[in-house]
Amino acid sequence: MSLLVVGSVALDSIFTPFGETADALGGSAVYFSVAGSLLHPVQVVGVVGDDYPVHELDALTDRGIDWSGVERARGESFRWKGKYSYDLQSRETLETRLGVFAHFQPKIPAAFRAAEYVFLGNIDPELQLGVLGQVQRPRLVVCDTMNYWIQGKKAALLELLARVDVLMVNDSEARELSGDWNIHRAGRWILDRGPSRVVIKQGEYGALLIERARTFYVPAFPLEIVYDPTGAGDAFAGGFMAYLARTGSLAEDNIRRAMVYGAAMGSYAVEQFGIRAFDRISLADVEARVRAFQDLTHVQLAEAVP
Amino acid sequence: MSLLVVGSVALDSIFTPFGETADALGGSAVYFSVAGSLLHPVQVVGVVGDDYPVHELDALTDRGIDWSGVERARGESFRWKGKYSYDLQSRETLETRLGVFAHFQPKIPAAFRAAEYVFLGNIDPELQLGVLGQVQRPRLVVCDTMNYWIQGKKAALLELLARVDVLMVNDSEARELSGDWNIHRAGRWILDRGPSRVVIKQGEYGALLIERARTFYVPAFPLEIVYDPTGAGDAFAGGFMAYLARTGSLAEDNIRRAMVYGAAMGSYAVEQFGIRAFDRISLADVEARVRAFQDLTHVQLAEAVP
Repeated sequence: MSLLVVGSVALDSIFTPFGETADALGGSAVYFSVAGSLLHPVQVVGVVGDDYPVHELDALTDRGIDWSGVERARGESFRWKGKYSYDLQSRETLETRLGVFAHFQPKIPAAFRAAEYVFLGNIDPELQLGVLGQVQRPRLVVCDTMNYWIQGKKAALLELLARVDVLMVNDSEARELSGDWNIHRAGRWILDRGPSRVVIKQGEYGALLIERARTFYVPAFPLEIVYDPTGAGDAFAGGFMAYLARTGSLAEDNIRRAMVYGAAMGSYAVEQFGIRAFDRISLADVEARVRAFQDLTHVQLAEAVP
Repeated sequence: MSLLVVGSVALDSIFTPFGETADALGGSAVYFSVAGSLLHPVQVVGVVGDDYPVHELDALTDRGIDWSGVERARGESFRWKGKYSYDLQSRETLETRLGVFAHFQPKIPAAFRAAEYVFLGNIDPELQLGVLGQVQRPRLVVCDTMNYWIQGKKAALLELLARVDVLMVNDSEARELSGDWNIHRAGRWILDRGPSRVVIKQGEYGALLIERARTFYVPAFPLEIVYDPTGAGDAFAGGFMAYLARTGSLAEDNIRRAMVYGAAMGSYAVEQFGIRAFDRISLADVEARVRAFQDLTHVQLAEAVP
């Protein structure tokens, strides 16, 4: 079951109350694939400039990440610089330099077109639609988006929604897209636009899986130390998709399990700066954390109230 | 197993985007007992002025609420007037008239002093300590507080913490009390002050039960219609305490179950204005909602990752 991600490959400079990084590997496709590759090989499509430290990507190939779909364009790589508030609850973008990303036109290599699991990272919805025109017959298409596209490319985004299986966004995006502050009504509004499922990420609280008849909630892992929230959502997506690709089942129960694997990856992402947390995580670690997630909400009810 | 609540018996005037109420029954002891009495009889200690519609309290006696500890003082009853924002996420206090509540000195009637389950609603921590001096040997003491007391009566509050089993507060209160924005560190800080458990209510997200070695999370019930958040926390406390009093077990698993009953009561509270939601709720309704809560986080993991 091949798994494809299309998204940004960036260089992040991040300031948090606990430290900073400069020009560190980042971007949605990088977080997605570093997390996802713990469970399943990942094919990446993106673009970098001629200043990108490609050897750092190459060093990750052994994890099962195929970077052959990452185009090397002439010019500067996508750079993002951001600063988090003291409580990590909000962040300010200090600088965005799109560089070669401004003209990114995803070209899916022939070897990737049969991908069965496709994640469309947060890029222009017109480009996301373009990707769907290049892949053959995916079993599952999940997409992300952001307020910038909701405001500026709503028609294309709605066209995209009619063609994807799952929209995965954070709560402010779901609210802005639907125009409804109630997150459950917002989810229903999105379901009415096409996707059969909506995943709504709620940061330190957890994530919701909203389906027509049922809702599932996975809390965030209780962490006393959080260093850097960057990339948590993409790591979540990587864990979610890679678990599904690994297990090959889209049954409702398996989608719930995938939510827990996603939440586990999101929890690792925030424990260190950038992608570093994934350096030393093994599959056994992931398994242990997934079991800890289960304990977090475990309650055994009596047959009837005593 | 007798259950006692000491708290406010008030008249609330509430404005929300969906309507308003004037001088409706409210206050922590009222919400607590209306919710809790679905599961177990409740004894109430509080004070009302000579303008209070006591017949409205009397109409609730048949639910199993013993109001005989509610003193009738000369003067005006405690009135609170508040207005919620369009998304119900924040509220502004328009007016607080303490009236007879300003001089409230809880006197526990002789018949209530053997109470085994005691909830100290949000009042001056010196008065909460005074209650502990009047009850005999409770099996479980749970207390609430608020930012006003954290700022103004911290020494008394810390003295109280050393003498209660559970502190039940919302997240902003836990943060302010501990001086730590990380909610799990805040919980640990509180545990270090005496309580063996901390319950942290997180509004539309749910509630955390933090113990030294384990954390439990119960999400909020997915509601597409929320009319009035007032009293949700006290209804939660009522469900939590009454479930424990009904079942008589303080085993860890039973405390988790009590969290779910609390969350169910909190979810009812917000579905209507004031205490009205509880008019037509039966024990069977509560049971059904508790099962729905279980489904909300239910996930069956594989023995090992496939």
